[in-house]
Amino acid sequence: MTGLLPWLEWAGVAVFALTGALVAARKQMDPFGFALLGTVTGIGGGTLRDILLGIRPVPWILDPTVVVICLVVSLAAFFTAHLFEREGRAKAILWADALGLALFTVTGTAKALGADAPAISAVMLGVVTATFGGIIRDILAGDVPLALRRDIYVTAALAGAIVFVLANRLLSPEVDDLLGFAVVFLIRGLAIARGWSLPQYGGRG
Amino acid sequence: MTGLLPWLEWAGVAVFALTGALVAARKQMDPFGFALLGTVTGIGGGTLRDILLGIRPVPWILDPTVVVICLVVSLAAFFTAHLFEREGRAKAILWADALGLALFTVTGTAKALGADAPAISAVMLGVVTATFGGIIRDILAGDVPLALRRDIYVTAALAGAIVFVLANRLLSPEVDDLLGFAVVFLIRGLAIARGWSLPQYGGRG
Amino acid sequence: MTGLLPWLEWAGVAVFALTGALVAARKQMDPFGFALLGTVTGIGGGTLRDILLGIRPVPWILDPTVVVICLVVSLAAFFTAHLFEREGRAKAILWADALGLALFTVTGTAKALGADAPAISAVMLGVVTATFGGIIRDILAGDVPLALRRDIYVTAALAGAIVFVLANRLLSPEVDDLLGFAVVFLIRGLAIARGWSLPQYGGRG
Repeated sequence: MTGLLPWLEWAGVAVFALTGALVAARKQMDPFGFALLGTVTGIGGGTLRDILLGIRPVPWILDPTVVVICLVVSLAAFFTAHLFEREGRAKAILWADALGLALFTVTGTAKALGADAPAISAVMLGVVTATFGGIIRDILAGDVPLALRRDIYVTAALAGAIVFVLANRLLSPEVDDLLGFAVVFLIRGLAIARGWSLPQYGGRG
Repeated sequence: MTGLLPWLEWAGVAVFALTGALVAARKQMDPFGFALLGTVTGIGGGTLRDILLGIRPVPWILDPTVVVICLVVSLAAFFTAHLFEREGRAKAILWADALGLALFTVTGTAKALGADAPAISAVMLGVVTATFGGIIRDILAGDVPLALRRDIYVTAALAGAIVFVLANRLLSPEVDDLLGFAVVFLIRGLAIARGWSLPQYGGRG
Repeated sequence: MTGLLPWLEWAGVAVFALTGALVAARKQMDPFGFALLGTVTGIGGGTLRDILLGIRPVPWILDPTVVVICLVVSLAAFFTAHLFEREGRAKAILWADALGLALFTVTGTAKALGADAPAISAVMLGVVTATFGGIIRDILAGDVPLALRRDIYVTAALAGAIVFVLANRLLSPEVDDLLGFAVVFLIRGLAIARGWSLPQYGGRG
């Protein structure tokens, strides 16, 4: 971790808030629907992580910077989302979500290691942080969560969290975030760009 | 806050439990489905608020008064809900929900200010407290959350929470709860009565 | 409680993880979808209980045994679930869920009593622990939660939790877990085997 942690967290919050707002656009919500869905998506994963870690109160209550980021991004999206075509917006959701996934895998795993969690719990918390904001977004919007669809998603976060922990322990804390981020974004990005998916369950129905 | 906080909280719990039980009636659940949905709706928003604030354990574990209120209201609803016509019940859900929204906006914002949260976090927690019981209710029942539909809902809670904080800081803590409650209930009530809604997102689909 | 608490907890985690993985099979997910849904189902109820009790961090962060159990069970299910016919799998989900319900009612109520919760809160926490893993599983998978369907489910957990508390207070802590477990599994098992249900709400629609 190279001291970038707060910036990575803020960037992850912003892009996830953007995905929430774009889903709100697809569902034709009003400005406050945008704000609610954007904010819940932006801070949901990190809030769950901090609750599980037992940090209290959750940090955004004392320093609401991330809430402000979510509100600004959501309302900006309300007034600009029409600039994208419908298909452009669906793609923007996927790519912003991929960026947020990579950022939150890194910050989630880093925060867990910083709280002295063992390696396997740190990996688990990295995956939870990265995926639950989007899961809450999709559940609220009435969609099947992206994280449970067939394309490679949880896999990317899991691989990145493992690489982060290995780099942190075996290489150097200077490069763990960069390596972890790159692994998630590369795997998830290739999955989006090439339509990759894992072998699905092939049982008898 | 005029010392009414626990009473307002109990009243909010009771009316939200009622909305949960009435949704259970619409879904034709058995008595324990009523009890579960009523209780989760009644204490869900406040429980999330207390978890976010880091109050532990959550207060109803030490003093289960609110749980008892939820159970009594839910079971009473099971045996009396048939007295309302179907349409009367849909209206009762909306109005009880509006009352709960106003009560929980006030108690949520007040508790957050009491825990020394900054103004913007207090507003956010007021909105979360007021809306999440109903969101959990609607998700469990398989409906689109009322809070995300197009009519004015989150807006009312947000306006009331802001008025509460302003009144608390600038006027007098004697009147903040009354003013906050009035603002939420007036805005939400007018939205229900007149079918008001905000301009929805008007982009290209 | 006869010193079996950790073993009962692990068994409950394993059978709930199995139900999550079998639902993932029905939804034709990939291996990581199995792992995510299995893990969330296996540790969801206990995690919520520990958050409500204010135990921090949640115990699986310090000792990830239950996470490992969930991952092993989920991946084992991915490679073996095809051995069951579709109908056999639907039945396996129901019965494993019943076993987990009985185990988690006991461990949830026991942990709450151990944290000095009053009787009614201990009963409530037993029911929450037993039902919420499955509720989260069903919500994520887009199904109506089993706990809210018409067959006897919450009822069984509630009866078992009450019997547990009564046995613990009036008889002997040596037998509370056995009695509580037996009550839940017997009631829920009979409900499954005989298609029992409670009188549903019989109002005017």
